[in-house]
Amino acid sequence: MDAVRAQVNTAVAVLKQRLGERLSTSSATCEQHGRDESYHAAHAPDAVVFPKSTEEVAEIVRVCAEHGTPVIPFGIGTSLEGHVAALHGGVCIDLSEMNEIVRASAEDMDVTVQAGVRRKQLNEYLRDTGLFFPIDPGADATIGGMTATRASGTNAVRYGTMRENVLALTVVTADGRIVNTARRARKSAAGYDLTRVFVGSEGTLGVITEITLRLYGIPEATSAAVCSFPGIEGAINTVIETIQMGVPVARIELLDELQMEACNNYSDLEYPVAPTLFLEFHGSEASVAEQAETVQVLATENGAGDFQWATRTEDRNHLWQARHDAAYAALSLRPGAKMWATDVCVPISKLAECILETKKDLAESFLMAPLVGHVGDGNFHLVFLFDPNDERELAEVERLNERLVLRALALDGTCTGEHGVGYGKLNFLTAEHGEAVSLMRGIKKALDPANIMNPGKVVQI
Amino acid sequence: MDAVRAQVNTAVAVLKQRLGERLSTSSATCEQHGRDESYHAAHAPDAVVFPKSTEEVAEIVRVCAEHGTPVIPFGIGTSLEGHVAALHGGVCIDLSEMNEIVRASAEDMDVTVQAGVRRKQLNEYLRDTGLFFPIDPGADATIGGMTATRASGTNAVRYGTMRENVLALTVVTADGRIVNTARRARKSAAGYDLTRVFVGSEGTLGVITEITLRLYGIPEATSAAVCSFPGIEGAINTVIETIQMGVPVARIELLDELQMEACNNYSDLEYPVAPTLFLEFHGSEASVAEQAETVQVLATENGAGDFQWATRTEDRNHLWQARHDAAYAALSLRPGAKMWATDVCVPISKLAECILETKKDLAESFLMAPLVGHVGDGNFHLVFLFDPNDERELAEVERLNERLVLRALALDGTCTGEHGVGYGKLNFLTAEHGEAVSLMRGIKKALDPANIMNPGKVVQI
Repeated sequence: MDAVRAQVNTAVAVLKQRLGERLSTSSATCEQHGRDESYHAAHAPDAVVFPKSTEEVAEIVRVCAEHGTPVIPFGIGTSLEGHVAALHGGVCIDLSEMNEIVRASAEDMDVTVQAGVRRKQLNEYLRDTGLFFPIDPGADATIGGMTATRASGTNAVRYGTMRENVLALTVVTADGRIVNTARRARKSAAGYDLTRVFVGSEGTLGVITEITLRLYGIPEATSAAVCSFPGIEGAINTVIETIQMGVPVARIELLDELQMEACNNYSDLEYPVAPTLFLEFHGSEASVAEQAETVQVLATENGAGDFQWATRTEDRNHLWQARHDAAYAALSLRPGAKMWATDVCVPISKLAECILETKKDLAESFLMAPLVGHVGDGNFHLVFLFDPNDERELAEVERLNERLVLRALALDGTCTGEHGVGYGKLNFLTAEHGEAVSLMRGIKKALDPANIMNPGKVVQI
Repeated sequence: MDAVRAQVNTAVAVLKQRLGERLSTSSATCEQHGRDESYHAAHAPDAVVFPKSTEEVAEIVRVCAEHGTPVIPFGIGTSLEGHVAALHGGVCIDLSEMNEIVRASAEDMDVTVQAGVRRKQLNEYLRDTGLFFPIDPGADATIGGMTATRASGTNAVRYGTMRENVLALTVVTADGRIVNTARRARKSAAGYDLTRVFVGSEGTLGVITEITLRLYGIPEATSAAVCSFPGIEGAINTVIETIQMGVPVARIELLDELQMEACNNYSDLEYPVAPTLFLEFHGSEASVAEQAETVQVLATENGAGDFQWATRTEDRNHLWQARHDAAYAALSLRPGAKMWATDVCVPISKLAECILETKKDLAESFLMAPLVGHVGDGNFHLVFLFDPNDERELAEVERLNERLVLRALALDGTCTGEHGVGYGKLNFLTAEHGEAVSLMRGIKKALDPANIMNPGKVVQI
């Protein structure tokens, strides 16, 4: 056993004494915590701890720092690029028991939650206040995880991403200090934007333990619609024109014909198997009607069929649940296959080109990959369906994924719009950012000089 | 002459050889560049350079880095906390000759500009595209300066601040490398948010040379209105209720009775001398009418007089010009006095308390300070009118300013909502951020280890 392993074992032993049953080294628990929803290989930590407070997280990190032991924060494990894999072992901090709403203000339209609070839990809590938190990545993720990965999802086109909606954070630093990144004021020019430094840092700079979020009033009126297009270009052009007209559409999602086939099967829908937009409008009654009318005109000009409206709440919920289940639905196209979900984001003027070239790649490949996306932001996903034990299939996914990413970069886009880097997209970071990666590395070294915070993710140092 | 001075002189000599007439050491030029619009003492740099490209900026910074010479970026000098004062001498980089629009895309609703492009110049350029850039701090500042100070202003309540509206930056690092912080995609989860690290960094981490900005469609309809209240509480409550109702008001500005007296005199207006809201609504015809109606009901319930509408473009321009001239108007209340403009920002639920306590301070003081603010964000300003040669007056401004800042901090607010830290608010940074200042210092040391970038501002190292 080498010196590093001995150090980790010492850290685990010290923590066991302090935390008792709230530290587990059982292989089932460790294995579960080294794995997310991605295909990327799992790596189990040496131990999993379940703290109940920011102070306890700080104490855990101090022990790990003292013994050079990696620390991997864990929400609920719904990340998609291997974010939680304990590549070098160490201690996984499972924040699920820190699931309290710390404070909320209807007047200020903000709320402070512990990192383990989940998205649906928060909106359930808020229901009677007339407010809601719009960011919705699909999975019922923890707010801590969503913050750490700079999550966005279907509502981002209207409400922004976690980047725009986190007001302040409580963070445990790599040496176990507790800091607050900002006050609750809506804006500030007082110093560097530490909040945005930690949003999207994927646990590599510290452990996010509390998050203050911006909230929104539940819209007076909501309506949702589905419309099909004879070809994908008509759907994409409708999206581009909607954004350019300044229609404050709340959701505008594209599903290709393959994805629609999957959703029809999996979620018991009966829509045409054709490129389709799922839309949602928020506002006053008059505003929603006006928005819908504008988009209908644009869609018709682009060859769309009739809008099918989901006006009842249960119909809307069914529709969006189907959208959220798109990946699982995709799996139903090839039972037994694994999925590799990838995402890119490009300027919207490049969206048609990026999607059409990608569809051409897929048409020429022997693999299947339904396409679905938050196209109002220029962001879309492929879900590759493959057999990971078949080397030819694995190589083909890697080839298609790399072509997709390089295409997005060539179009002034990003290698990931919302899934994050983890270790799955680590190798694309320099292709995207070039020399700027050295600045990221500088920040990493400044805030985590011993490289114990989720090592091997985002930037390699 | 000490060793540091000799180094600076060498750097200036080397730069003179390369830049010729685009480097000035004339005392008039240097003095002008060491001064902003604040009361804070000016400090002239040793030389001012006028580069024409990012590459030239990089060359200048490399020479300065080689000779340990401070570098102070300069836009147009409208900052308010001594941001451009060359506290330790050095080379001021005046970016005003880098004033080209690099590219623009109506389709993507974005534009890339050189740092010296000014706000009004940009909107003039955009006029025929149907797009505009909404951030409006009042002064016709450079986009580079607005980015460096995380500016906001009257439209921020609807469109956000520079934090939300900068998509990407080109930056010259402290060792003279050129980096791009992001691609043009609307969102990204690819690594640390370097863009937001530089937005608001006040020239202390590098020189921002190009900025890609998000644009918006010019609204189909715009209307503006003025309404007076018998007391300031009615005005503040109207603001709070407007925000809570989710009315997407474009501007909602509070001016107290003293400021209204000043504006009436200076800008030839004839409004009642009473606490007043200036409002602007953007949207479709129907939406603007709906917004205005909602706010009118709220204002009336809070005791307001009738709305006075400015529907013609020239009337609206006159109104907002008067608002922008508020500080100059304030000066007219005490001819010959100097002004010390300060700002704080608090959660909106604390706004009434913060303003009323502050007004009480002012009522008890022998000094005058009109109050004006972007109250939809919880942000407001005082403009102290004083004689800087009178020690008693100076001490009184310092006392009142400190009380204001500490009050805002006690209410979970910030010591500056939009003016920034410069060196005027340096001493409040620890009171606001506590231990988090050490993280800011870590970032500063990582990105500017020799402390040559605008030294003595934001954080002291």
